[in-house]
Amino acid sequence: MRIAVDLLGGDHAPGEILLGVADALRADFSPEDFLLIGPKEITESFFKEQGIPDIPEIIHTDVFIAGDEKPIVALRAKPKASISLAVKAMKDGKAQGLVAMGNTGAAVAASTMGLGMLKGIRRPAIAVTFRMAENSFILLDAGANPTPKPLHLFQYGLMGESFARDIFDQDRPRVALLNIGSEASKGSPLLQETHQLFSDSDFNFVGNIEGNHLFSGEADVIVADGFSGNLALKVIEGFAEFLGQAARNLSDDDKNLRASFRSLLGAADYSEVGGAILLGVNATVIIGHGRSRANAVLSAIRFVREELQKGVNQHILQSAAAYSEPAQSSHD
Amino acid sequence: MRIAVDLLGGDHAPGEILLGVADALRADFSPEDFLLIGPKEITESFFKEQGIPDIPEIIHTDVFIAGDEKPIVALRAKPKASISLAVKAMKDGKAQGLVAMGNTGAAVAASTMGLGMLKGIRRPAIAVTFRMAENSFILLDAGANPTPKPLHLFQYGLMGESFARDIFDQDRPRVALLNIGSEASKGSPLLQETHQLFSDSDFNFVGNIEGNHLFSGEADVIVADGFSGNLALKVIEGFAEFLGQAARNLSDDDKNLRASFRSLLGAADYSEVGGAILLGVNATVIIGHGRSRANAVLSAIRFVREELQKGVNQHILQSAAAYSEPAQSSHD
Repeated sequence: MRIAVDLLGGDHAPGEILLGVADALRADFSPEDFLLIGPKEITESFFKEQGIPDIPEIIHTDVFIAGDEKPIVALRAKPKASISLAVKAMKDGKAQGLVAMGNTGAAVAASTMGLGMLKGIRRPAIAVTFRMAENSFILLDAGANPTPKPLHLFQYGLMGESFARDIFDQDRPRVALLNIGSEASKGSPLLQETHQLFSDSDFNFVGNIEGNHLFSGEADVIVADGFSGNLALKVIEGFAEFLGQAARNLSDDDKNLRASFRSLLGAADYSEVGGAILLGVNATVIIGHGRSRANAVLSAIRFVREELQKGVNQHILQSAAAYSEPAQSSHD
Repeated sequence: MRIAVDLLGGDHAPGEILLGVADALRADFSPEDFLLIGPKEITESFFKEQGIPDIPEIIHTDVFIAGDEKPIVALRAKPKASISLAVKAMKDGKAQGLVAMGNTGAAVAASTMGLGMLKGIRRPAIAVTFRMAENSFILLDAGANPTPKPLHLFQYGLMGESFARDIFDQDRPRVALLNIGSEASKGSPLLQETHQLFSDSDFNFVGNIEGNHLFSGEADVIVADGFSGNLALKVIEGFAEFLGQAARNLSDDDKNLRASFRSLLGAADYSEVGGAILLGVNATVIIGHGRSRANAVLSAIRFVREELQKGVNQHILQSAAAYSEPAQSSHD
């Protein structure tokens, strides 16, 4: 079990990414757990400076895809880009997990095209988890596919359900559909048809959920089309930033307030796992935010290991196989 | 200029609504400013108890549409419902403004069907305003029409622009389109076509805006399809509630923190105007939340007066007339 780490994605590459790997090596990871893709000399000097003699294998490249490049165009133009070499190495069986910071579209496209989909799954989904004291949930798709079909949404639910069993230790995760009303007849034909698919399934489907109930602990898996999921996620991000800014503007007298306030906002911190989770492809992939620092990289590394150890993808495969047959015969 | 007030909508009807009207009368409103629709005897006793001798005209009814009733069905089944009688009185010229708490769908349908649209405007929009220290903005549509056409979205921008000129005192309001990416090619064909309509117009169109930039002061008017607008609004609501709940759970030692925290959340309080603004119909209508208390009712009353005094609808009519002709001839 090895994790490929793209050293060249994101705003703080390769420094913060290398720091994250170094932290992992100082903790309970060993060099054999990693395959690094990036500038060989810089990486070797870095570990030397850090006093880490025993270092992971490195695949050298100094080509990268920037955050603002068009994914497909950039992937074609740069066959030696770090993300492409990382995926190629995974295809060759050299790693099963991937941590990449930066251009989300390029990471999704490279993984999907290079590694293929899990058998039975039609489309990948970007998932984000909100892990809180009282309740955790996974929201997917957060933007991989803004115009999905009902079956894609159904399979997002299937993947999220396997994920929630393994990662949240939920026996029978509650699956909900993000919509603008609670009735089955609400929303677009896409959402209405998806509602029907879930209602006819054996999943613990709790119906539509509205945006104001995301955090009220009513569902463990929240299925959304990529447009709505992305919008919801960004609205939360923006509102948290706005409040955080308001807190920063407090006078120095309010230092305690400021600290407590930020810890409250932290309660809804979806970056705990270090990034967005790509589900549906034939590998375990975390795509971190471009602005990720070492601690986010370390979290992502830990999370990829957890997913691999708990067998999330195997469980998705089993569930997909069950649902490719008529529901009655497979689940009764 | 008279404002019809539906006394029977919402969770706290008629008590809190009457209290709001009483507060208005004790401030700078006179009985002639109001037309009340609701239970006559209860209303008369209420004002007597409050020591207000000179009271507004009352149209009696004790029929109402509850928040969970299906709007069109309920409107047909209950011709004497307070919202229907209010709209009928407005149609007869007895009032120009309307404040209604409760069933939003019923208020939208009754107003649209009973009063008609402003000339040149195809569809009504529900607008919400966020009025903050640093910057204010209006978001529309927040749910009147989940499946609009590009022209409808364009006209939401037109209405929002007139509104922002009048209410935010913006000379040249910046109009943006809610989307999941900044490029013109992002989002559905609906959003792409709307982007083109705005780009070809004389509006101060600043392009697409993503959910994480709603609060960053980049736009004064944010145009959304009813699904996205409703989702964004509810996500904000839900996240604010979640944080508010977290603040309430703080220990008593943190009382100051709790108070400050709530005032921070209040910075994004879109209920300052007392409810959602219905734009596009041939009247000035505010639809309050079902849980509105007296202060929200008073805010709504004040806001309807402000809209009437500043002539928002007249300015929408002028703008719609200008845009019904070719842009070149009307705006050069």
